[in-house]
This record gives sequence, C-alpha cells and structure tokens, in this order.
Amino acid sequence: MTMTEQHHLTLTTRGRGSTEITDDIAALLRTSSITTGVAHVFVRHTSCGLAITENADASVRYDLETLLARWAPDADPAYRHDLEGDDDMAAHARSLLTGCSVSIPFTAGRLLLGTWQGIYLFEHRTQGHRREIVVTLTG
Amino acid sequence: MTMTEQHHLTLTTRGRGSTEITDDIAALLRTSSITTGVAHVFVRHTSCGLAITENADASVRYDLETLLARWAPDADPAYRHDLEGDDDMAAHARSLLTGCSVSIPFTAGRLLLGTWQGIYLFEHRTQGHRREIVVTLTG
Amino acid sequence: MTMTEQHHLTLTTRGRGSTEITDDIAALLRTSSITTGVAHVFVRHTSCGLAITENADASVRYDLETLLARWAPDADPAYRHDLEGDDDMAAHARSLLTGCSVSIPFTAGRLLLGTWQGIYLFEHRTQGHRREIVVTLTG
Repeated sequence: MTMTEQHHLTLTTRGRGSTEITDDIAALLRTSSITTGVAHVFVRHTSCGLAITENADASVRYDLETLLARWAPDADPAYRHDLEGDDDMAAHARSLLTGCSVSIPFTAGRLLLGTWQGIYLFEHRTQGHRREIVVTLTG
Repeated sequence: MTMTEQHHLTLTTRGRGSTEITDDIAALLRTSSITTGVAHVFVRHTSCGLAITENADASVRYDLETLLARWAPDADPAYRHDLEGDDDMAAHARSLLTGCSVSIPFTAGRLLLGTWQGIYLFEHRTQGHRREIVVTLTG
Repeated sequence: MTMTEQHHLTLTTRGRGSTEITDDIAALLRTSSITTGVAHVFVRHTSCGLAITENADASVRYDLETLLARWAPDADPAYRHDLEGDDDMAAHARSLLTGCSVSIPFTAGRLLLGTWQGIYLFEHRTQGHRREIVVTLTG
C-alpha cells in the first residue's frame, strides 16, 4: 500500500550562495516507513530556489553563481520591480531559472541520487533569509 | 490509504504573458478527498509554460517577460525553426526555461504555497492559444 | 489503492545533443498495473538533463543547442571549474537550465503528453556517456 509523509524544514541562509540539504532529506528517509517512491522538496519562496548539481568541487557552484549573475543581473536598468533593492528582481528571475522544487526517487530508504549529485538550496538574495522547505514522501 | 485524482482544465490565453491559475488548482483541492500530498500541474504544449513566481507586484512578471525576450529573442537570425513565425522558436526556448510542469505540496485540502507564491501559465506565443492543463493529485 | 513501481533504464549517448526517450517511458506504462498517476523520470548525473520539447521538427532541438551554447558557453574564461575540459562547466550549467527530471501524468496506461511533446535526454558533454535513468510510476 502507498503512503504519504510530509515534513517541514527551516534553514537560515547567509546570503547569496548555495547550501547542501542532501543529508537533511536523506535523514527523513531513514526514519520513514515508505521504502520506495519519490521525495518531493519544495521551497515556499520566490527569491530562492532548489537545484541538484555537482557535489564534489565547490567551484562548480561558484561558476553557477557567475552565470546566474550574467543571466539575471542585479540592478538591471530594464527592471521595473526594485522595491527591496538591486537584488530584488534578479532574485525572482534566478528563482524562475532554478525552480522552487526538486524531486528525487528513492528505494530501501535511500535517495537514488548519482554519485556526484547533491541537493542544494540556492539563496538568490544578497542578504540571508529564513527559508521554509516542505518535503513530501510518496510511495 | 493513498489515492490519485486527475482533473483537466482548459484556458484560452490572450497572447504572450502570464495568467494566474492558483485559484483553479486550489478549487480542485477543496473538493478532493485527498488531504495530504502533492498537486502535479502539467501543460500539454511546447510553446507555453508553467512557473511559480511572485504574486503581489505585477511588475515582477513584466520584468520576467523582459528577461525571457533577452534569453530567447524573437526572430533570432541563428534560428532554423521559424515555420510559425518570428515567435515560434523563441516560444519553444522559453518553454525549456520555464518548464511545462510544477508540483506543489498540500495538506488539509490547502496548497502549501508561500505567502508570495502564485502559480502562473506563461503563454510564450504572441497570439492567444487554447491550452490544456492536467492536474494530478496524489496523496 | 495506489501503487508505486520503479524501473531503471540505461542509455549510451553519442555526445552533445538530444535523444528521444518517450517510447521507453510509454513501454513501461503499457506493462504496468498502475492505470492513472504520474510518471517521474530522473537522470542520475549533473552533466546531462531531461526536458520535454517539440517532437516534429528536429530543427527545434538544433536551435535549442544553439541557445544552450549561448547561455552556457564552453571554455568561458570566467569558469574556475574545468577539470574535465572546456565542456565540463558548460555541461553543469546546461544541466541547471534543463533540470535532471521530468514528470508526466498518465491514465489508462498512456502518457498524457500533447501531440507535439516528446521526452528527451539532453547530453551536455561533447563526448558520449553511459546515462542511468530512474522511472518511478505512482498512482
């Protein structure tokens, strides 16, 4: 029989950059009675994002920030939305590109991530924020 | 016990731009017998997309259109695909960036969206189109 | 009652470009006892991706490669990460943009894709690689 479990995580970021949350998700699986299914991870904000990327060399995530800044520059003169400052609209645009959820298959209580895959919370604002994440396990 | 429910929505867009569909998804949840799970929303087209973004200031979605036009310009001389006009290939490229599905956790018949998150159908063609959406509730 | 089924596929790519896998996923559904739900497709790598795009005119996927090369150029002087060559960081950046999973609703053992939608594995490295895909059917 299939079951659904829902968990809430809260992280406080230290400003723009990425934080690995793979272990937080893996820990929920270890104590779950659901053995096989999909872990859905969702962030309840529009100025940060979730993505799966390379977990071995931190320079990959450094270079992703370089590209995100190129794709969605801070303080772009074309922006109309700047209520919260130069990084406000850029953060929403970065959020569109990274997305606000990832979903990962699991079995036997283990995420089926590849060897080099990690799950990361990307803070898109320059200042740190308190970020709420909802993890739903279905299987 | 877990259940699955599937619903079909049809929207007619008025050309390039975004239309909020949060209430359409929320309404399906209110009448569902599934209390906790994930709502999967899928658009059956390759020239529009679905995304979750800021719902308070319409200028955010105006600025996202400005960036989408920069990332995937209409009538780019590099395009080979232009059967349906200058916006044809640009629409497929915008669709790659926004994606064609979003999934949102819910509980007690309510979407667990953040305060500032809305679910939007992005029409990527310049003309309006009839768009079919499939909503699958699992929980 | 809801059920979950998990399947593993392995594809060997021939280098940068896209390979349609729609029929591979459809075949799993035809032999499944799950009639209605969502098919979750996940690639266990950070230098390739999965995306749903136009399936009729191959020039669409040719043009998407043109844009991916513009968004995430090979050998960009700004990159710090180049352990595996000029296409290494570009492949991780393309993977962020395409994502590493897609999910498609199905019913009566058939994917609810639109007429022009195909599911594609995008190889982001210049050389071919062996790619592992996990398909989880829940419904």
